Amino acid sequence: MAVAAKFREIGRKIVCVGRNYGAHAAELGNPIPEKPILFLKPTSSYLSEGKSIKIPKGCSSLHHEVELGVVIERTGSNIPETAVPDYIGGYVLALDMTARDFQDEAKKKGQPWTLAKGFDTSCPVSSFIPKDKVPNPQNIQLWLKVNGATKQDGNTKDMIFSIPTLVAYISQFFTLEPGDVILTGTPSGVGPTNPGDTIQCGLSDVVTMQFTVSK
Amino acid sequence: MAVAAKFREIGRKIVCVGRNYGAHAAELGNPIPEKPILFLKPTSSYLSEGKSIKIPKGCSSLHHEVELGVVIERTGSNIPETAVPDYIGGYVLALDMTARDFQDEAKKKGQPWTLAKGFDTSCPVSSFIPKDKVPNPQNIQLWLKVNGATKQDGNTKDMIFSIPTLVAYISQFFTLEPGDVILTGTPSGVGPTNPGDTIQCGLSDVVTMQFTVSK
Ligand SMILES: [Mg+2]
Ligand SMILES: [Mg+2]
Ligand SMILES: [Mg+2]
Repeated sequence: MAVAAKFREIGRKIVCVGRNYGAHAAELGNPIPEKPILFLKPTSSYLSEGKSIKIPKGCSSLHHEVELGVVIERTGSNIPETAVPDYIGGYVLALDMTARDFQDEAKKKGQPWTLAKGFDTSCPVSSFIPKDKVPNPQNIQLWLKVNGATKQDGNTKDMIFSIPTLVAYISQFFTLEPGDVILTGTPSGVGPTNPGDTIQCGLSDVVTMQFTVSK
Repeated sequence: MAVAAKFREIGRKIVCVGRNYGAHAAELGNPIPEKPILFLKPTSSYLSEGKSIKIPKGCSSLHHEVELGVVIERTGSNIPETAVPDYIGGYVLALDMTARDFQDEAKKKGQPWTLAKGFDTSCPVSSFIPKDKVPNPQNIQLWLKVNGATKQDGNTKDMIFSIPTLVAYISQFFTLEPGDVILTGTPSGVGPTNPGDTIQCGLSDVVTMQFTVSK
């Protein structure tokens, strides 16, 4: 079994990529990035199925963002793009829950995104997905429904920066370690969720998961 | 021995506070914050004495920021200010090395600070300092010299938000876990360092450390 399968226990960082789908960058009025936009969530933000996503104190606009997560299998820095597959242990389906009002304020003030992105329960994740279950991670459907209505329905082929490009770029600055997770960005269709909502999402039909939102 | 003493092995996040000394906020032309400004460094950014601080690729202005780090002893969220001492296992002296040019660009574009703050070697730290070595963490000198010349010489009594206020605030959003570290901000006097420079810094005379800077 891949070491990466224990990402919840051993992983020490979650590196997230912002605006990695053109249609999503556009829907929030942002330009297409020239290089990957990186931010972190702490591992304390992980949430497993069966527990509720909690709206953080003071937040009035909690958005869903469904994303493909790449789980790192072994330590690497300055990884060449061609070697990236050797460093990937598997995948997870993840939600990059975002306090959009906190983020809007941070962007306006030139402040960090941490509070908007890293609060407890901001990273609901599926169980580990072995590599062989996702033969082509660059052509798989990512979908999300709120209370049964489809909100996001994209495909990883529309990433601006591919998984090898992202992992290679990130590893130039941050040494990647076993169990670290990279969230590769969300397709368009992000939007608010409210207490009582049920979020269902999936990576095609390889894995699906469901969460409720509470105060 | 405190569990916190193993922060390098077991800790999973480094929560940093920006602009927590008035004179430092002023020297970079920033307003005094109304609430703590939080960002993260990954634990992969830790560096121990004997290894060099490396200027990240593309950075042309790497700044030193000497800071007091608080090491968490046990898990807590929504910690009341009065209970904070029970959650602290000890301290570390730390450098919040900052790619100031990356940060300036991020601030201008409303983007995250992660690349500016979290690159490999961006968090040089001392060995663990047991709690009883710092009887009053809110009145102790923090100093830093570059090539023998004093650049920073402040006192933790000048923090805008005290340690109990910071820990209580952070724990409302982020569950704190054993070995997590909180960097409490830097006094004034930050400035650039260049390849070949030697940085010496100390927490009064309780602990001192030395690092060289390389390409
Ligand atoms: Mg996202
Ligand atoms: Mg972390
Ligand atoms: Mg700092």
